Amino acid sequence: MKTNEIPYKIYLSEDEMPTAWYNVREAMKNKPAPLVNPGTGAPMAAEELEGVFCKELVQQELDNDTPFIPIPDEIREFYKMYRPSPLVRAYCLEKKLDTPAHIYYKFEGNNTSGSHKLNSAIAQAYYAKQQGLKGVTTETGAGQWGTALSMACSYLGLDCKVYMVKCSYEQKPFRREVMRTYGASVVPSPSETTNVGRKILAEFPGTTGSLGCAISEAVEVATSTPGYRYVLGSVLNQVLLHQSVIGLETKAALDKYGVKADMIIGCAGGGSNLGGLISPFMGQKLRGEADYDIVAVEPASCPSFTRGKFAYDFCDTGSICPLAKMYTLGSQFIPSPDHAGGLRFHGMSSILSQLYHDGYMRAVSVKQTDVFKAAEYFARVEGILPAPESSHAILVAMEEALKCKETGEAKNIVFGLTGTGYFDLVAYEKFHNGEMTDNIPTDEDIAASLAKLPQV
Amino acid sequence: MKTNEIPYKIYLSEDEMPTAWYNVREAMKNKPAPLVNPGTGAPMAAEELEGVFCKELVQQELDNDTPFIPIPDEIREFYKMYRPSPLVRAYCLEKKLDTPAHIYYKFEGNNTSGSHKLNSAIAQAYYAKQQGLKGVTTETGAGQWGTALSMACSYLGLDCKVYMVKCSYEQKPFRREVMRTYGASVVPSPSETTNVGRKILAEFPGTTGSLGCAISEAVEVATSTPGYRYVLGSVLNQVLLHQSVIGLETKAALDKYGVKADMIIGCAGGGSNLGGLISPFMGQKLRGEADYDIVAVEPASCPSFTRGKFAYDFCDTGSICPLAKMYTLGSQFIPSPDHAGGLRFHGMSSILSQLYHDGYMRAVSVKQTDVFKAAEYFARVEGILPAPESSHAILVAMEEALKCKETGEAKNIVFGLTGTGYFDLVAYEKFHNGEMTDNIPTDEDIAASLAKLPQV
Repeated sequence: MKTNEIPYKIYLSEDEMPTAWYNVREAMKNKPAPLVNPGTGAPMAAEELEGVFCKELVQQELDNDTPFIPIPDEIREFYKMYRPSPLVRAYCLEKKLDTPAHIYYKFEGNNTSGSHKLNSAIAQAYYAKQQGLKGVTTETGAGQWGTALSMACSYLGLDCKVYMVKCSYEQKPFRREVMRTYGASVVPSPSETTNVGRKILAEFPGTTGSLGCAISEAVEVATSTPGYRYVLGSVLNQVLLHQSVIGLETKAALDKYGVKADMIIGCAGGGSNLGGLISPFMGQKLRGEADYDIVAVEPASCPSFTRGKFAYDFCDTGSICPLAKMYTLGSQFIPSPDHAGGLRFHGMSSILSQLYHDGYMRAVSVKQTDVFKAAEYFARVEGILPAPESSHAILVAMEEALKCKETGEAKNIVFGLTGTGYFDLVAYEKFHNGEMTDNIPTDEDIAASLAKLPQV
Repeated sequence: MKTNEIPYKIYLSEDEMPTAWYNVREAMKNKPAPLVNPGTGAPMAAEELEGVFCKELVQQELDNDTPFIPIPDEIREFYKMYRPSPLVRAYCLEKKLDTPAHIYYKFEGNNTSGSHKLNSAIAQAYYAKQQGLKGVTTETGAGQWGTALSMACSYLGLDCKVYMVKCSYEQKPFRREVMRTYGASVVPSPSETTNVGRKILAEFPGTTGSLGCAISEAVEVATSTPGYRYVLGSVLNQVLLHQSVIGLETKAALDKYGVKADMIIGCAGGGSNLGGLISPFMGQKLRGEADYDIVAVEPASCPSFTRGKFAYDFCDTGSICPLAKMYTLGSQFIPSPDHAGGLRFHGMSSILSQLYHDGYMRAVSVKQTDVFKAAEYFARVEGILPAPESSHAILVAMEEALKCKETGEAKNIVFGLTGTGYFDLVAYEKFHNGEMTDNIPTDEDIAASLAKLPQV
C-alpha cells in the first residue's frame, strides 16, 4: 500500500474496537514471578490478595494462561466516550526531520484524564462496583492516574480517595481541582492520616514523597476501611491486561493499512503504557510469528531497567505490600524532586521485567533536559503539547528516525504518545527558563538503596 | 435511521473534510454593515484596511457575495493534524437527563490550543506568510486565541506578538508557557509598550484590562512596525468564514446519518464559534430551505445581544480601530474581573448582529454560577472538562433537553463544545469553594457605557 493513502489519523470505527483484552502472559514461556507474602516467602494466594484487591481483579492478576478476557459491555460503553484513540502518522515530524522512516504514534491523550490511565481506571472501578464496594483508594504521582480514577468513579458512583505524591501535589495544583470536579478527595502524601504516613514523616520530616510511600498509605486505608479496596494504575499484571487495548487498536490500525511495525517504543515508569502498547506485538514475537525491536525508555533519574536489579522487592516504601519480582532501584529509592518527567516508580512491572530479562526487549535511559527539548520540538511540529512522560518515547523515536536518515532505511517506527502536558507547565516553564537539571543518581545512591532489598 | 446506529462519535474521513469555506453573507438579503472610517464616516476601502490586515484577508472581509472560498492546500494539511473534529452523540447525558431529546455536540477542543480558534489562526497566519510578512500581532482574552495563533505561527515560521488581557494573564499563568513553548512573546495588557496602553494606564491605573484595550495595543504595534499586520480571533467576517469549517463538518456528519437538527446552540462572545457553527444551517434558513431554532448564549456579565444596542461602535477601547455596526455594550464597557467565563468582548460580529436584528436567531444570557454548575455536571457525565465559554452552550442545551422531557418531544439538539477547561482551573476552584459570583452589570452601568457611543 502506498504511503500517501495513509491518513494523518487512523481512526478505527467503534465496532472495530477490541471486544476482549489480550493477556500477553499466555505466550510467555517464563511466566512473571508471582507476588510473594513478605512474612512467609510463599506466593500470595487469591484469598490473601482479596483483602487488598477486588475478587475479579485478583483472578485477572493470577491468570497466566487465558489469552483473551472479554471486556464487559459497560466498560466498552465507557471506552466509546474517548476511544478508539487515533493512530497518528507523523507526516509533519517526518518532513521536518527529513527522514525516510515512517513514524506513527498512538495518541492516548484526548480525554480529560489526559492519558491512557483511563483504560484501566474504568475497568478497576467497574469490578469494584460489581462487587458491591463503596469506594476505592489509590495513589497518584503526576496526577494522571488519580484523575482517571476519579472520572471512572464519578461515572459509576463510587467514592474515591487519592493519595498524591507531595511534590506533584505542589507542582501540579490544578490536578487537584480536576479530581475535585469529579468528586474525589485528594491528600498529599506522606500525610498524617495513616500510620505509615506518620511513620515516614517522623523518619524523613522534609520528604517530598514518592509513589511507593503513597501506595503504602492508600493500601493501609483500603485494608482498614470496610467496603473499600485498593486500586493501582500501573505495575500489576491486571493493569497491563486492561492497557492491552492500546496495543490491540494500534495493531488493528496498522493491519488495516498493511503496515508492519519495525520498532515499537514506549516510555516506562511502572510499565502500564509500554506493557499495553506492546502486548499483541510481543505475543507474536514470543510465538516466533514476527519480530519487532521493542524499546523501553526510562528517565535517567529513575532508571530501574538500566541500573536496577532483577529481584524481589516491596512495591511500596512502607513495606506493607506484597513482594514483586522486578527490576528495582530498591523500595526506598526516591527520585530527585527536581525530576518533573513522571515515571517515578522505583520498580517495574513483573511481566516487563521478565521479558526484558529474557531478552525480548531492550531499554534506554534518557536525560530530563533532552526529554523537554524533544517535547518542545514535537509540540511545534506535530501541534500536540506532550506529557513529559510521553516525551521520553518521542525523544528516542526521533533519534531512531535520524539514524534511519543516516542509513537510508524506511523503518516503520511506532511509539506511544501516552498523554498531554497541560498540567506540566511548571516543568515547561523551568525548562524555558533554563532552570531544569538532570538529577541522575550516583552509583552510591543506587547501591545504598539496593542494599535494603528484602531477603527472600 | 435508528438511533442505535449512530456511534458515540461521528468522525468524517479526511477526504470528507470541506475543501472550501462557506460564506453565509451570500445568502443574506440584508448584508452586514461595512466597517466605517471613524474620521470620515465612510465605509473603509480595501486600501485602508490593508494597512491593518493582509490583502487576501481584506478581500475575504469585504466579499459579501462569493458562496464558497477554496481552502488552500497548505491550510487543509494543517487542518488534518487535528480535524475533522468529532460530532459526539451525548448518549450519556441524554440518559442521565432522562430526556427524549437527542443531543449532539461538535467538539473542537481536541487540539493543544484547546479550542476552535486554531481554524482561523492557521488561515490568517497562512495569508500573512503568503504576503511575505515577518510577523503578526494580536490580543487574547482567555488565551485560547493567542495559543492558537502561536501554534499556527510556529508551524509557518512567523513571529507572533500577543497582548493578553491582564486579568487573564494573571488568572491563567500556564497559558503564557504554552504560548512560549510555541515561541510567541506575550505581554499583559494594558502595557507600557504602546501609546494607547500608556494612555489607558494613566487614565485607569488599576485596570485589569479588556479585550478592546488589548486590541488597541496590538493594532498600534502592527500598524507601526514594518512587515507586521494585525490578526483577530473573532468578530470579523473573515473569521466567521474560516470557522464555517465547524458548521460544514457538523452538517456533513448529521447528513451522513440522516439527522435533521431542530435546534443549534452556541456560546457567543465575538461570534467566532457560533457564526462558524451555524453558517451552513443559516444559509439554508435564509434561503427558506430548512428551519432551525438558532440560539446564541452569552454571559449575563457581558450581555451584548440581550442588553446592548445595535449601532456603530469602535471594536477597541482605545478608539483606533474602524467602527463596526453591531450589538454593543459600548467600547468602554469592561466586564467584572470576577467574570471567569470568557466571552468578554463588548460587541458582536456584524454578521450575527444583522441576523439577530432580522430575527433569524435568538439570544439568551446566563449566569456564571449556573454555567459552572452545568460544566461540572457535563464533565462528570460526558467525561470532558469543558471550557467555561463552551459551558454556556451546555447549560442551555441541558435546559432545552429538560423542556423536551416535559413535552415529550424528541428534538435533535446540536451545540458547539468549543473547547476544554484545562487552563480554567482557577475558576473551577473558585466555583468549588463557593466563592464565585455572578457580576451582572446594572442598567446604569450599561447606560453609562452606551452614552459614549460614537456619533456616525
